[in-house]
Amino acid sequence: MSVAKEGDIALLISKDGKRFMVRLQAGGTQHTHRGMVSHDEIIGQPWGREIMSHREYPFLLLQPSIHDLLMNVKRLSQIVYPKEIGYLLLKMNIGPGARVIEAGTGSGAMAIALAHAVRPTGRVYSYEQREDMLRAAARNLERVGLSAYVELKQRDIGEGFDERDVDALFLDVREPWLYLEQAREALTGGGFFGALVPTTNQVSDLVAGLELHRFADIEVAEILLRGYKAVAQRLRPEDRMVGHTGYMIFARQTNRPPENGEAASEATQDATPEAAEGIENGEMADSTIAGLTDDLDEEV
Amino acid sequence: MSVAKEGDIALLISKDGKRFMVRLQAGGTQHTHRGMVSHDEIIGQPWGREIMSHREYPFLLLQPSIHDLLMNVKRLSQIVYPKEIGYLLLKMNIGPGARVIEAGTGSGAMAIALAHAVRPTGRVYSYEQREDMLRAAARNLERVGLSAYVELKQRDIGEGFDERDVDALFLDVREPWLYLEQAREALTGGGFFGALVPTTNQVSDLVAGLELHRFADIEVAEILLRGYKAVAQRLRPEDRMVGHTGYMIFARQTNRPPENGEAASEATQDATPEAAEGIENGEMADSTIAGLTDDLDEEV
Amino acid sequence: MSVAKEGDIALLISKDGKRFMVRLQAGGTQHTHRGMVSHDEIIGQPWGREIMSHREYPFLLLQPSIHDLLMNVKRLSQIVYPKEIGYLLLKMNIGPGARVIEAGTGSGAMAIALAHAVRPTGRVYSYEQREDMLRAAARNLERVGLSAYVELKQRDIGEGFDERDVDALFLDVREPWLYLEQAREALTGGGFFGALVPTTNQVSDLVAGLELHRFADIEVAEILLRGYKAVAQRLRPEDRMVGHTGYMIFARQTNRPPENGEAASEATQDATPEAAEGIENGEMADSTIAGLTDDLDEEV
Amino acid sequence: MSVAKEGDIALLISKDGKRFMVRLQAGGTQHTHRGMVSHDEIIGQPWGREIMSHREYPFLLLQPSIHDLLMNVKRLSQIVYPKEIGYLLLKMNIGPGARVIEAGTGSGAMAIALAHAVRPTGRVYSYEQREDMLRAAARNLERVGLSAYVELKQRDIGEGFDERDVDALFLDVREPWLYLEQAREALTGGGFFGALVPTTNQVSDLVAGLELHRFADIEVAEILLRGYKAVAQRLRPEDRMVGHTGYMIFARQTNRPPENGEAASEATQDATPEAAEGIENGEMADSTIAGLTDDLDEEV
Repeated sequence: MSVAKEGDIALLISKDGKRFMVRLQAGGTQHTHRGMVSHDEIIGQPWGREIMSHREYPFLLLQPSIHDLLMNVKRLSQIVYPKEIGYLLLKMNIGPGARVIEAGTGSGAMAIALAHAVRPTGRVYSYEQREDMLRAAARNLERVGLSAYVELKQRDIGEGFDERDVDALFLDVREPWLYLEQAREALTGGGFFGALVPTTNQVSDLVAGLELHRFADIEVAEILLRGYKAVAQRLRPEDRMVGHTGYMIFARQTNRPPENGEAASEATQDATPEAAEGIENGEMADSTIAGLTDDLDEEV
Repeated sequence: MSVAKEGDIALLISKDGKRFMVRLQAGGTQHTHRGMVSHDEIIGQPWGREIMSHREYPFLLLQPSIHDLLMNVKRLSQIVYPKEIGYLLLKMNIGPGARVIEAGTGSGAMAIALAHAVRPTGRVYSYEQREDMLRAAARNLERVGLSAYVELKQRDIGEGFDERDVDALFLDVREPWLYLEQAREALTGGGFFGALVPTTNQVSDLVAGLELHRFADIEVAEILLRGYKAVAQRLRPEDRMVGHTGYMIFARQTNRPPENGEAASEATQDATPEAAEGIENGEMADSTIAGLTDDLDEEV
Repeated sequence: MSVAKEGDIALLISKDGKRFMVRLQAGGTQHTHRGMVSHDEIIGQPWGREIMSHREYPFLLLQPSIHDLLMNVKRLSQIVYPKEIGYLLLKMNIGPGARVIEAGTGSGAMAIALAHAVRPTGRVYSYEQREDMLRAAARNLERVGLSAYVELKQRDIGEGFDERDVDALFLDVREPWLYLEQAREALTGGGFFGALVPTTNQVSDLVAGLELHRFADIEVAEILLRGYKAVAQRLRPEDRMVGHTGYMIFARQTNRPPENGEAASEATQDATPEAAEGIENGEMADSTIAGLTDDLDEEV
Repeated sequence: MSVAKEGDIALLISKDGKRFMVRLQAGGTQHTHRGMVSHDEIIGQPWGREIMSHREYPFLLLQPSIHDLLMNVKRLSQIVYPKEIGYLLLKMNIGPGARVIEAGTGSGAMAIALAHAVRPTGRVYSYEQREDMLRAAARNLERVGLSAYVELKQRDIGEGFDERDVDALFLDVREPWLYLEQAREALTGGGFFGALVPTTNQVSDLVAGLELHRFADIEVAEILLRGYKAVAQRLRPEDRMVGHTGYMIFARQTNRPPENGEAASEATQDATPEAAEGIENGEMADSTIAGLTDDLDEEV
């Protein structure tokens, strides 16, 4: 059983449900609505234990999840929420070892999630024009111990990205359609493109741009997360929920020749609904030889 | 730029949007609605390139994402969808190096997602009672190349789990509330518990069970994924969508002493809505010394 | 073109979007954040005209919709929202001439909507135990000019309803399953039953009760209303939305003999999903003679 | 207790949940999957009674709701669903006595809902260019007995509407922004405008058009209806749901002078989010004299 050590980030949850995120320091003190909690009484304690404030009020000592850390960073960045991040990581195939570009860095929330997923062998290249944001992101990455996996770059991405053959590229900028040629050049063949934009007008502009730049398998989706009051005898959804953060757009880089550009974009357009339907209906796989899916017939 | 090799799984998307998942074998052939595609013409080609069928119809050659692979497995397992998986991984803090238990294995979709996230140093322990499901899961893991990170175990989990101090534990079984003491024993202090159940009655039973067994920070949520027709000039949501897969339940193991059990469960109940609200309002962090969040005041 | 008259309710919307609901009185004055508006300058003006405050700030003069009136009453009653009311009226077949019972009255929002829909020849019988609520509802009905169509009754509905052969009956009470025999007796043969409850536990209890009391065609549904920021160039959903008000439950009274009660409830249970699917698939109507739907074949 | 009569429309629900909509005719027969049902055995029976087919299978005899009738018509018209209709009626203030224009008629579903709501003293003017649609709508209105309240007109609405001072006007056409001046002229001062369009691009075009034509209080919303499997012990949402029908757009006609047009449209744009927020927060009413809402302080 592991214990809380100096330098760890601890999540303290009071018995009445208040949450406090604390970096443990010898001699440190955390002020709460229920009295002070001494860091020295936390350090050395096993995670999952109850700690008492000086007013004898109990606090649960927990390690924060990556979700907790992201929620804590959230206030700086307006748009990427954990509800989208999990789905983005799966759709963009981001896992240990992946090399990923993102722009803009913002307060570093997405960089934290990417670094957490690609470490220890992968790498995140994060571009941002604003120096103040970049400094904030650097601090946030430092605090959660993920700086080693992220290269922060102050740059106008209109000038292009430094990297080549990256596995995935994520744009969280106002006009992502302006940087699609740069994205194409940085991505590996068939690499994963993702973006998040808040308005439908931006979705239309980006989809049109992706078709023009010969990206394929374009998908648009949004996620609604609905929390419930976790009361066994009176189970019900929360009264209020987040109605919108952003639309997610996904696509794949291609090496289709430019002269087929226009025709290709028509095909993409027609293909999307059908493709999506195919997946939903479970009609995707038709492999007949050495098929991945021949088990399916046995069991369905 | 990497190329398709024998043994790789390839995703072929026809120009009219049909998708084919294929394991490449020298001499192999993929039959499609637009003619045959020879594996030999694929092997050695860079990903992202267009391949022609014998009827000269173009297919885009792509590496499947973990999302594509999960959608392909999906038909066997009724319940865990990629839309939930991404969120589950974040909430349960599953990343490289994590040691995770899951039950039941089903067709292995969740095991694949877990293995993809924890590799190469982490480990997945996956329990399942039915031998046929376990065999199917083994094959599915083998095919996507993730077998090395998963231990499949045929077992009634009522007898307990073999592992101790695991970081996270996920239950996808009909009556998860029957196995909470076993889950407590297997989890490390403050470890992450997750479950997915289809009915509200099960949610109520599980929440009651988690309180009884002194789990804390209980949360219930569901995710709605809404796809759009990706047409720039006629952007609109898909006509039909998945209305429900399951409710996600999250909790943290605690080492609260049993004699406080009842009181603790009351606190948990009261705390949940407030805690959630705190997060939403961004009022979570109040650390004053060595705070993680003192930057926030500078920038917000 | 009709004009605003003394005694009318006017909705004033300031150029910066603030809304004021006012009953017009000769000599009256409305205080606003942009100066005072004299009722005398409103009276006699055509609806749709701009009115100036004494600080020359423009206000649009409108007649409130029934929706505006309901939103204004909303604060007293916790649960019935206009988003549900419109659907409830359609499902319960409430239109001009209908005779409807509701309980409890609450602040009268549902009574207002029902009265608006059934007037002038229909009638609403509204039961409420609390005298203070009943007085508030009476005032609210008086103000919107719909008192003539509603009979308010202070009563414990456990004692039964006075009316017989009513077309529809709506329960907005904590334990609606306690009053189903009373509901059966009051409803006409095949009459429409509706209820709204906030928790899933109540839904389960009510569905079980409806089956026990030989109601048929039981349906459960919820409505999510998602508002958008109405900006042409930056169209996007509102950041926050109402996550939950309540679950709607619908059923039909039957005259099935009691001895078949149990069997009938089984049938209802099995039938529900299929029936709903039938409707969605448009496979509902199969009439072959004198059919309502023979046109459908001509045009689909 | 009323009984089924010749000429009535009956909804028969078999014990296994199949639904049949039938117009009763002496000597008629309804074929079902469970045997034939003779109309003569239905005629004279009280509603809510069980009827036996010739194979002794029970069918529940019910009067269809307006919702049932609309679902039955639905197949012809692609877009207006009952889930939207109820909300549209409330927002557009449509009740007994209202005079309403709609275009296009389509298969008459919206006309049926409007006629049902405005009868007996109101009137619906329904415009449609296609003669075949108009004939189908006429038959559908005839069958549900609502023809007397609807005037069907074959017309290009670009030429304008015949009526003046109508209370509400609803556009269900592809390019509603082309007909806003015609709508303005037909609507009474401050009258209610509503429209339904399937794509976000159309929403943007319509919102821009409404601002240009000095409409006010512009709102955009969509409704998601989520059905549940009505099983008490296994309550859960339906697996699949309708993901999208259309976006609803609402606005109010104004008599703002044209020279203020531009400024007015700016105000509308800024005002919308705030106004919506005001409603949600229940801060709408600030009336101080002869206020509608002074009761609120007593009870909240």
